[in-house]
Order: sequence, then structure tokens, then C-alpha cells
Amino acid sequence: MKDDNNIIIKKLKERGVTIKDIAELVIFLQKDYHKITYEQCEKEILKVINKKEAIHAILVGIALDEMAERKMLDQEINDIILEDKSLFGLDEVLALSIVNMHGSIALTNFGYLDKIKPTIIGKVNNDKNSCNTFLDDIIAAIAASTASRIAHSYKE
Amino acid sequence: MKDDNNIIIKKLKERGVTIKDIAELVIFLQKDYHKITYEQCEKEILKVINKKEAIHAILVGIALDEMAERKMLDQEINDIILEDKSLFGLDEVLALSIVNMHGSIALTNFGYLDKIKPTIIGKVNNDKNSCNTFLDDIIAAIAASTASRIAHSYKE
Amino acid sequence: MKDDNNIIIKKLKERGVTIKDIAELVIFLQKDYHKITYEQCEKEILKVINKKEAIHAILVGIALDEMAERKMLDQEINDIILEDKSLFGLDEVLALSIVNMHGSIALTNFGYLDKIKPTIIGKVNNDKNSCNTFLDDIIAAIAASTASRIAHSYKE
Amino acid sequence: MKDDNNIIIKKLKERGVTIKDIAELVIFLQKDYHKITYEQCEKEILKVINKKEAIHAILVGIALDEMAERKMLDQEINDIILEDKSLFGLDEVLALSIVNMHGSIALTNFGYLDKIKPTIIGKVNNDKNSCNTFLDDIIAAIAASTASRIAHSYKE
Repeated sequence: MKDDNNIIIKKLKERGVTIKDIAELVIFLQKDYHKITYEQCEKEILKVINKKEAIHAILVGIALDEMAERKMLDQEINDIILEDKSLFGLDEVLALSIVNMHGSIALTNFGYLDKIKPTIIGKVNNDKNSCNTFLDDIIAAIAASTASRIAHSYKE
Repeated sequence: MKDDNNIIIKKLKERGVTIKDIAELVIFLQKDYHKITYEQCEKEILKVINKKEAIHAILVGIALDEMAERKMLDQEINDIILEDKSLFGLDEVLALSIVNMHGSIALTNFGYLDKIKPTIIGKVNNDKNSCNTFLDDIIAAIAASTASRIAHSYKE
Repeated sequence: MKDDNNIIIKKLKERGVTIKDIAELVIFLQKDYHKITYEQCEKEILKVINKKEAIHAILVGIALDEMAERKMLDQEINDIILEDKSLFGLDEVLALSIVNMHGSIALTNFGYLDKIKPTIIGKVNNDKNSCNTFLDDIIAAIAASTASRIAHSYKE
Repeated sequence: MKDDNNIIIKKLKERGVTIKDIAELVIFLQKDYHKITYEQCEKEILKVINKKEAIHAILVGIALDEMAERKMLDQEINDIILEDKSLFGLDEVLALSIVNMHGSIALTNFGYLDKIKPTIIGKVNNDKNSCNTFLDDIIAAIAASTASRIAHSYKE
């Protein structure tokens, strides 16, 4: 995979997240249903992150995390993003613009990942050195959407 | 509680679901966060099911289950609803019209319940004698929305 | 076009709506942007109505209109659907499950059609002899989604 | 009205939009239905913009416009926001997080305003000296939601 040519893969890597991390989440979501390979996951993840709506949501979400980290936003909204107050819901709104393109299985998986926060999602969520308010939901959205694509491909 | 005066409580009971069943789901969702009583749950559940949008979604969803059960719809759509084919997503669309009024915590909880199908949701989902394609999502939506209301009331 | 083989086209025709009626709406929506032919419209309309989610929403929506017309639902919800009370929103919720698959241009067009109710939408909406509570929103959703597909195809 | 104490009113004014501008849109949307006063509008607008979800969406949307204006985001996403490419849909996604709390009349009004872009929306949309990619949708969302609140208050 030509990682360096894909701006989303590059940006996720800068923020500490690899396609392999996301593939692990997809395999976790699918483990009771189908045995899938890492290669299959990677191929489907790329289809999810290369959609225009996904590109926009991922880039804007990470930009907001970075701006908040550098305290470049107006104080009130900067504080809200930095602290990821549990009543802030825009991180999820952005993530849902990815999820909603992949049907109801994607949504169910997204809610599940957001609730139990496994592996990379928990790691990113607990990272004290960076602001990942939007990033953790973005990762959950990509993994949930990919798992939904795979589930649909088996069922159709 | 004057159960008999509330059309939603009456209708849910006819389909085998009590407010107590739903309260159990709410307590399950909240168990790691706050200790809540059954009375608190019941009070908040009533607020969720008495909203106009919820009344419509619940009555229409149950009507579709009942029509499919009695095979009164055109065959193609009757079969799809009866079998709850996993690619049918309208049951979730209807349920989300309840969930969406209660913010992002409601949505996360809904996805979680829909994935693990605890207690009454599993029971309704596995019931071989009735068609509960819409009902299981409706119950999950009510419980998830109620848990979100309670979470918000503690945080604000 | 093999109309008779397509259950959606057949069902819409039974309720008084042809693909030509919908194509007129699409041409109306696009008139300030691109000159499109009836054939282009028809081709894109078929892509919209042949998606699984659209098939389900259209068949369920029309089934509810028909059940309400024949007074086969519980009285409370039957009355609400028959009268299309302006605070009933489930017709739009169902229609949005089609619209949401076609991006933000589809949504804008849907709101516009729903507000001004041109040609077939107005006709169906004012028909005193049948219940078209769901049908008018379904038509608006198909036309708005098709116009969005065409707009995207010109822009990309 | 103590404008200076309300961060949203202050921020909108900084970007060239007054509550009076938004009230005009509301009166325009309601003109065929009910005669409403400017004072009624203002009161309902305040209820819309003081909801937590609205505060977050408005502050984040305006922050993105301002960051893009000052070219502080990564080039790719900065360019997309600056040019408001018609296939960018995140501005609408953010606006819908306000609209969705006010039911289906709000959504219809939002689509209508976004299509015809009257008064302040057109002005903001055509302003060559600032980046208002998110702002025009935010204004439409506030006006559409307020009109929906007023419509509901007359109907209930």
C-alpha cells in the first residue's frame, strides 16, 4: 500500500493510528460472524476512508483536535474540546457522517465500540499528551463502517 | 402509575413488554456510573415515551409487526419484515427517530444494546411466536434514551 | 424500461405516480444548473429506487398509506396517518432514509420540494380520495436524491 | 437583551450577523401561516441558540471559518473550506445537529432556506472578504429551527 500517497493514512499515522490498529478493531467486531484476513480488512478500510465525505470529516476532526491542542481557538470552545466534556457531542456528529453512509450495521457497531472502547480507541482516548476528542470517534467510525461493508458483502 | 390510561404502556404490554422490563435495561446501562432506583427509571421512561415523536414511532412500529404477523401486507414487504432480514434497516430508522431526540449518549447506548441484546431485548428478538422486528429496536431506543436523560441530569 | 418487472415502479403506478412524474420534478430541480434529458433522469431514478434501503422505505410507506386508507390499524395511529397531522413526522423520517444516502444536495432539494410541493407532489398531497401521507414524501425523496446524483456526476 | 453576555450573539455579530437578521428570516418563513412579532422571534431564537448542542455547533463552525480565513489549517482541508466546494457537506452536517433537535418542520425549512438563500444568507454566502462556509448554514439552521418552534407552539 502506498501509504505516503494517501493523505488520510498519513494524517492518522501522525496522530498515532495505523491501518493495522483499525483492522484489529474490524476483526474484533467480526469475530463471532466471519473469519476475515488482515488483507481483506485493509482493502475495505481503504474504500471507507477514500470516500469524499469521510476525507472531509477525518481532516476536519483531526484539525480541530490539533487546533485545540495548540490552544488556537477561542477560549470557550477550546476548553470544551480539550476536556472532551461528556456532554460535547460534535465529535460524534462528525463521526456519524461517515457511519451513516454504511447502513444500520455500521451504526450499531459504532455505538458498541464507543461504549466499550477496545484497544486503540481506549489508548487514544486515555492519551494525556494529546487532544484526541475527535480522533477516537473517527477511528470507531472507520472500523464500524468497514465491519458493516464486510457483513453486507457476506450477506448479499 | 395509571397504566391503563397510557396507550403506549398498554400497547407494549399487549406485545409482552412492561415498563419494569425497560427499567431493568436502563439500570443495566447505568450500573457503572450511578446508582438509580426503579422509581427514577420509571419516571424518566414516561418522559421518553410521552413525546409525540416517540408515540408515533412506537405505534407505527408495533402496527407493522402486527400487520406482518397477520400477513396483511403485500407479500414482498411482509416476508422481509417477518424474517427480519439482517439487511432490513427500517426498524432501526424508526427507533432512531426516538433516540435522536436525546443526544449522543442515547445513540451510543442504543448501538450497545442492539449489539449485545440483553434480557427483554434478547427475549423479544428470539420469540418464535410473534413478529417483533420493530419491537426489539423500539425497546432498545426507549431504554437508551432514558439512560441518556439520566446521565445528562447527573452531569448538568 | 421493463416496468412490469420492477415492483417499485408497479407499486408507484398503482398509487397514481409514474416515473415520468418524478422525472419532471428532477428536471424542475436541475433547471437552473444543467440541461438534462428525460432519459438521463429515468436512468438515475432507477438507480435511486433500486437500492435496498429505498425499496424497503417505499414499500413500507405505501403499505402504511394503504392500511390507513382501509382503516386496518389501531384507531389512534390510523387517525393520525389518515389526517397527516402536520406534527406527524414519521413520513419524513422514512423519506430521509432514502435522501440520506445521497448527500447534502439531496437533503436541500428534499426540504425545498416539501415546502413548495410542485406538480405531482401537490396533486398527491391534495388528493381527497386516497391517503398519501407517506407517498408525497417518498416522491420528493426520490426526486431530490436523483437530482443530487446528477449534480454530483457533473461536478466530479 | 443583554447581548454582551451571550457569547453566541457576540460571535455572530463579530461575523456580521445580528439577531434581527435572523428574525427577518423567521418572519419570511412564517409569513403565509401566522403573523408574528419581532419580539416573539427574538425570544424563540434565544431558546434555539442557548441549547448546548447549538452552542457547540455554532462556535465550532465559526472557528473553522476563521481558521480557514487565516490559512491556519493543513492546506488540503483549508482549501476545501475556503472554496466551499459544492461537494463539501460538513457545513450542513454541523447545521443539521441544530436542526434535528426541532423536528421535521425545521428540516423542511432548512432545505428551503439553503436552496433559495434569502437576505442575510445570500449576503453572507456571497461575501468575498470573509470565509463563511459554515456561517451561512448555521444562520439557516437557527432560523429554520425557530420557525419550527413557532409553528409547533401554534399547533399544539
